[in-house]
Amino acid sequence: MLSTTEIFAPIQEGLTRVEARLTSQANDRFPFLSNALVHVYETSGKRFRPALTLLAADFHPHDGVKVEIMATAVELLHIATLIHDDTIDSSNFRRGKETLSSMWGRNVAVLVGDYIFASSATFVCDTGHVGVIRRFSETIMDLSSGELRELVGTFSCDQTVDGYYKRIYEKTASLFSTSGESGAILSGASAEQAQALKEFSCELGMAFQMVDDILDFEGTEKEIGKPVGSDLSQGILTLPAFIAMERYPKENPVSRFFDEPENADLLAKAVDMVQQPSIIDSAYAIAGERCARARGLLLTLPKNDSRDSLEELLAQVLERRS
Amino acid sequence: MLSTTEIFAPIQEGLTRVEARLTSQANDRFPFLSNALVHVYETSGKRFRPALTLLAADFHPHDGVKVEIMATAVELLHIATLIHDDTIDSSNFRRGKETLSSMWGRNVAVLVGDYIFASSATFVCDTGHVGVIRRFSETIMDLSSGELRELVGTFSCDQTVDGYYKRIYEKTASLFSTSGESGAILSGASAEQAQALKEFSCELGMAFQMVDDILDFEGTEKEIGKPVGSDLSQGILTLPAFIAMERYPKENPVSRFFDEPENADLLAKAVDMVQQPSIIDSAYAIAGERCARARGLLLTLPKNDSRDSLEELLAQVLERRS
Repeated sequence: MLSTTEIFAPIQEGLTRVEARLTSQANDRFPFLSNALVHVYETSGKRFRPALTLLAADFHPHDGVKVEIMATAVELLHIATLIHDDTIDSSNFRRGKETLSSMWGRNVAVLVGDYIFASSATFVCDTGHVGVIRRFSETIMDLSSGELRELVGTFSCDQTVDGYYKRIYEKTASLFSTSGESGAILSGASAEQAQALKEFSCELGMAFQMVDDILDFEGTEKEIGKPVGSDLSQGILTLPAFIAMERYPKENPVSRFFDEPENADLLAKAVDMVQQPSIIDSAYAIAGERCARARGLLLTLPKNDSRDSLEELLAQVLERRS
Repeated sequence: MLSTTEIFAPIQEGLTRVEARLTSQANDRFPFLSNALVHVYETSGKRFRPALTLLAADFHPHDGVKVEIMATAVELLHIATLIHDDTIDSSNFRRGKETLSSMWGRNVAVLVGDYIFASSATFVCDTGHVGVIRRFSETIMDLSSGELRELVGTFSCDQTVDGYYKRIYEKTASLFSTSGESGAILSGASAEQAQALKEFSCELGMAFQMVDDILDFEGTEKEIGKPVGSDLSQGILTLPAFIAMERYPKENPVSRFFDEPENADLLAKAVDMVQQPSIIDSAYAIAGERCARARGLLLTLPKNDSRDSLEELLAQVLERRS
């Protein structure tokens, strides 16, 4: 399997400039805020979303600056979301580094998150493209709406698989979609190509989140670095749980666990049921259908290094193990 | 003294349409979120900021729709800020209604606040004016930066009067400034008029916040509806406290209270010192200077009903008692 560095080779210089933009943005205000921002930006993620923006721009000759500004914006938006998510989940660590809320308290984390949300919007404005700016604002609405849908639905048996797809679109695929589409639009791609890259990115995001949700049930606590079935233990139903509940409508420990959320035995039984290989396989098959559709969209685009990278990214979504 | 309804008479119809836009926006997503938004929008504020946008637009013949969209955006931004502020302060009530964080918990409040921030930005995009959109995003950065400055500075004797002015610019005057300036720009006012209305609104906002901070030390708990000196009790220095500390550099109970924040006697002594009529008068004099400058800027504009309303608003800032 190729490393991320290898996949991102066609856009490595652009990604480096995105990092530089993040760093220079950290020093705009007063020392406390700068320190907080530097801490956050150094908790380096995979830069998956800005890479998508840069790769999606590569189907049309273009001035790189606007696309790189956009790539910086989508990464900032992702970071802001993570900060508020960690605050809500009371998580103390992210990628091995202490979270803002753990270091300086939830109130600081809420405000630094707000600042980064706003900062991401300011970057988008510098693209000068009102359509892209508006889509970006709608994406922030999607992200908070998706998180809220998840939060208020916990431990409710009214959660549906349709609601699940809406939720993962809002909380994950929406930003993937905007990352790809905006790269295409700002590079001057045709409306058809921009639409194909938007839909490709959306399907990639849907599959990415489904696999994330499947991994939550796979392997052992040691392998995945958190308790197996942590979504379920928090009262959140995801794809494998929905498949299990559909397959065993009568004898279902999930709803019994939701009635008694303190009952560890019921949780263990529910996780056991969902973890069955046939259920995990079915869930991967559904994620695989999204990837197949994404690949079809990709093949409508001219072949180049970036298309190869996007195809490789897609393949890795199904193969990743963390 | 004129009532707010009388002052807002020239723009009453526009304000009604702004209310209608707020209400219709509440129904975009799923029922829980709609209920939360309706609850928040019904906690009706004074609509001071959207009024400023509408009044500032009245110096140039214009299509009202864009200006009303902008007015809706500034009110949404203000509401989002209040929700995060209430969450941070753990406030249970605002204008006599229960806060979101009290009703549904802090996590819901953080996410609903995020949603409204994003929603405000989406409204601004519909003005189609990239300059206004960018200024709006910068204002969101200002608001969170100002709140953060306040939060991390509490109980520190390093707080300075210059830092105070920066902080109240960021947390209050910045949005006033953007409210007025954007109304002027979107109405097609000349650059000079837009600049005058921006500066007028900024000074109005600075005076408004100073008076707010003075009122925190005036009268009794019964009159102002919260404990006297609540800012100081939370470790926040404001204009009257800075004047008192400058006047009595040697025998100052404020720094002694900051060393012992649990000591109610020291707090009472500090409040007594700041409450002295001569100190309160000096603070009003400084706010009055801002108002005088604002009035001067207003007089450069052609006289009309809206200018009269803006002048009346300014007069009321110094006279208000709650």
